Amino acid sequence: MAEMTVGDHLLRRLQEVGVRHIFGVPGDYEMEFLDQIEAADGIEWVGNCNELNAAYAADGYARLNGIGAVVTTFSVGELSALNGIAGAFAESVPVVSIVGTPATFVMRGKQPVHHTAGDGDFSRAAACAAQYTAAQVMLDRDNAAIEIDRALGLCWLTKRPVYLMLPCDVSYQTIEAPDGPLALPEPTTDGGVLARFADDVGERLRAAGSVALLAGPEVDRYGHAAQLLKLAEALGCPVATLSTAKGVFPEDHDQFVGGYGGRLGDPDVRRTIEGADCLLAIGTQFADTVTGGVPEIDPRRVVAVHPSAASAGLRQYPHVSMPDAMQVLAGAGARQAAAITPARRRTSPGAPQPGQLVQQRFWARMAGFFEPGDVVIADQGTSYAGGSALPLPRGCSFIGQPLWGSIGYTLPALLGALLAAPGRRHVLLIGDGSLQLTAQELSTVLRRGLKPVVVMINNGGYTVERCILGAHAEYNSIAPWRYDKLVEAFDPAGRAVTVRATTEAELVQALQTAGANRDRMVFIEAVMDELDAPEPLIRLGQAMSATDYHPAGVP
Amino acid sequence: MAEMTVGDHLLRRLQEVGVRHIFGVPGDYEMEFLDQIEAADGIEWVGNCNELNAAYAADGYARLNGIGAVVTTFSVGELSALNGIAGAFAESVPVVSIVGTPATFVMRGKQPVHHTAGDGDFSRAAACAAQYTAAQVMLDRDNAAIEIDRALGLCWLTKRPVYLMLPCDVSYQTIEAPDGPLALPEPTTDGGVLARFADDVGERLRAAGSVALLAGPEVDRYGHAAQLLKLAEALGCPVATLSTAKGVFPEDHDQFVGGYGGRLGDPDVRRTIEGADCLLAIGTQFADTVTGGVPEIDPRRVVAVHPSAASAGLRQYPHVSMPDAMQVLAGAGARQAAAITPARRRTSPGAPQPGQLVQQRFWARMAGFFEPGDVVIADQGTSYAGGSALPLPRGCSFIGQPLWGSIGYTLPALLGALLAAPGRRHVLLIGDGSLQLTAQELSTVLRRGLKPVVVMINNGGYTVERCILGAHAEYNSIAPWRYDKLVEAFDPAGRAVTVRATTEAELVQALQTAGANRDRMVFIEAVMDELDAPEPLIRLGQAMSATDYHPAGVP
Repeated sequence: MAEMTVGDHLLRRLQEVGVRHIFGVPGDYEMEFLDQIEAADGIEWVGNCNELNAAYAADGYARLNGIGAVVTTFSVGELSALNGIAGAFAESVPVVSIVGTPATFVMRGKQPVHHTAGDGDFSRAAACAAQYTAAQVMLDRDNAAIEIDRALGLCWLTKRPVYLMLPCDVSYQTIEAPDGPLALPEPTTDGGVLARFADDVGERLRAAGSVALLAGPEVDRYGHAAQLLKLAEALGCPVATLSTAKGVFPEDHDQFVGGYGGRLGDPDVRRTIEGADCLLAIGTQFADTVTGGVPEIDPRRVVAVHPSAASAGLRQYPHVSMPDAMQVLAGAGARQAAAITPARRRTSPGAPQPGQLVQQRFWARMAGFFEPGDVVIADQGTSYAGGSALPLPRGCSFIGQPLWGSIGYTLPALLGALLAAPGRRHVLLIGDGSLQLTAQELSTVLRRGLKPVVVMINNGGYTVERCILGAHAEYNSIAPWRYDKLVEAFDPAGRAVTVRATTEAELVQALQTAGANRDRMVFIEAVMDELDAPEPLIRLGQAMSATDYHPAGVP
Repeated sequence: MAEMTVGDHLLRRLQEVGVRHIFGVPGDYEMEFLDQIEAADGIEWVGNCNELNAAYAADGYARLNGIGAVVTTFSVGELSALNGIAGAFAESVPVVSIVGTPATFVMRGKQPVHHTAGDGDFSRAAACAAQYTAAQVMLDRDNAAIEIDRALGLCWLTKRPVYLMLPCDVSYQTIEAPDGPLALPEPTTDGGVLARFADDVGERLRAAGSVALLAGPEVDRYGHAAQLLKLAEALGCPVATLSTAKGVFPEDHDQFVGGYGGRLGDPDVRRTIEGADCLLAIGTQFADTVTGGVPEIDPRRVVAVHPSAASAGLRQYPHVSMPDAMQVLAGAGARQAAAITPARRRTSPGAPQPGQLVQQRFWARMAGFFEPGDVVIADQGTSYAGGSALPLPRGCSFIGQPLWGSIGYTLPALLGALLAAPGRRHVLLIGDGSLQLTAQELSTVLRRGLKPVVVMINNGGYTVERCILGAHAEYNSIAPWRYDKLVEAFDPAGRAVTVRATTEAELVQALQTAGANRDRMVFIEAVMDELDAPEPLIRLGQAMSATDYHPAGVP
């Protein structure tokens, strides 16, 4: 056992689980911990413009890095960040939320201090955090060694945020810290249950005339993409991915039939997935924005594998880990002989068309822009609908947030992704309406000399909303900004390149500029009509309009 | 009784209580209500860049208008706004928070829709809102007529936010709405209790050798400034205000001795207030950032008046309204004969001093800039510490948020204040660190052609934090922005004027430019050293440092 301060022990544990950057905004209840971060080797403070952006950045970081962390101050900071933490909770992204609180004796004495309602109640913000975190701990000298390990373990195991309150007088208190590194828990398997699962799925696969595989976001969250590929190749069956799992299976693979979007998506892919005698659903989660709700698939034909449980038809198999279940499936199935029609490959968009840039041509051009290994990040709305429908080269990652669907998420998430994977090219697809929510975080990207390609669709507001209701409503329009000046404001050193494209030819030119300027950020403003939208968004808008504003008489 | 939709009835009630502008951000669960707002006469939608800004704007609006309203969408929108609602709760600002939720049948069916965690739990965000609101209602056809009135009544009576969930299928449902306008409740008085209070304070005032009056924020919130003036003039005693009540008593009045800041403030004012034989504390609330904690005043010498209760020494008098209590006090006291040393008046700052602009000269110059009737808004930190110490001309309002202390609050609050009081001049005092949190809302100010004077102190980061800890820490520095370009980005029409001042002479020039350009927004960037701070901030930083990071051995 070594003597160590609580703050230093927490930093050591964060490093052991892979955190190299901590996002946040300073506040007076957390600055002793910030001093400890600044003094620590191997872990770096990333100051954000505001706390919501910091939480989004930590989420984007965690999606590529495996885990992330954010530090905010009591109540005002943490509540500003809450929507970002809640998004990580909804989308199963492990983020450690550390909140600096008033000193223990201040809280005990119910003192009327700032960041409270002056009434001695210090519990309100923690009650909010409890709604969206897997563990909540008020750290002190006595519990720190045990509770930090418990909370980080839960964060890793459940892929949900956890909440650590660090009173400002506790950071520098000394504890006896355990010597060894933190052993992170993984989902475990009950051998007996696994054997019964193997028998069950063996029978099903042998009996099935057709098998198909559908991959969902849990595969990537739990790091099992390589095993998914093995499973698919062992079975030789058609493979589709949910948009939330885009990139987890190589899109140029012969077995890849495309993205599956249920009622919203490609009818051919839908037939393959929904028509299979046996559908292997690996780590899937359904949502209105991903699949138009729960797909109409007979549950008796589905074998579902989740991080720590599986099912076959209506039978549940608890305590089966995803890798164990996948191994069983790979061994159980005969290789499929049926011919597979692979997903449509990228086709040449031909010569630029004259006139105003339109969505359909925009996305055709973007499809040709991506390179193997890119990180593509698409904000909810037009960008996600268009971006998730494009074929991606091998090794690309695709980041979006369709279930939680908080617009503005991706710009700070881009910052996090850039720091998590500095060797890769990052391409952000975002609309003007979304960008305005979190625009200032672009300054942190530039301050740190990062070099993404930002492609902003300027279509005068919330086109995703216009597709649902209020097509011409004033409330769906936003303030017109000079986005070139915005980049200049955030870039006093003048490193970034800004290009505006109002025609397809200008877009082609802009993308060439981006290709030629990999040593700096390139910001492309693509101007399109406010009612122009990619086909998937139009379908999504119609579906949502029907769900949100159902005609009178529907129960 | 008239047939009316739930949405239209809500809008009618909001108008009856004085709401003419509704702030917010569109989302698909609220757009039917937005359609109703857009169709309504006499009430206007104000689209904000993000939801936190919208809540801050509604708070700023409510402080001048008496009540405000904000509309956000389920979970993602309302959680982003939560810190703004919580600030209104802490500082007793009545804001009606309306949240558009999924359709009733979607929630009842636990459907996996966006803005949820996909698990059928639709209650999480409401549990958070309940921490910071005085009433929570899920509206439906059956309860709307009663619950809207109950919630708005509580909002008005308690000066706390209330939370109305409006499912998107309920907006257009028809109800029988009551004919008459909403009668807003006010605190009431028990005649018997009031008589006993009168006897008690009559004795006290007759026996007291010296009487002093200290006014707090509840006087303004409940609209009793005129009666406060009458009370003070009836007693002829010295009057001080908390910084949270600045402007509620005329600062050029002969009886005004200055702002009272307890341990943090002027020693002369402290002696007058703490040394009085009988202190009349009217609507006061204490906090570390306002008075360095609870002042060291013998409670037996205090007569305290609150919105619906009073106390004299250790005796409590419930069910006594503030105006009734003040009337009793005005009638009970003999007019004081003692000479009063009025607060220091504005003095001429003399000729500009050469060299870099410094805080002390900056504030001396600002003191001469204010005019009668101005609305002065100061962000927490350097701006609030400096601004609250300046003498204000008659009829000025002063807006800040020292108890909740969420930096960035004031820029969106400025938007709200501008719309609440369009005939007055508005002056925002804000630091660069604070401005970066909510900077984009400046674009809404410009989009609507509003004409404030924004004075931004550019001192490279969080100087308020540097005064507490980390004076030279990297975490207290922020990204350098070109603020002139930022204004250009938000101002495509080129209406605003931007001026940068690095010397006192340039500041004088900048303030003259502001005086000469009342038909447009003027943005002044005042550049000062990162460690330069006004005297009250230095005292505050020392006090906080002691509270936050107490030396070992303190309990």
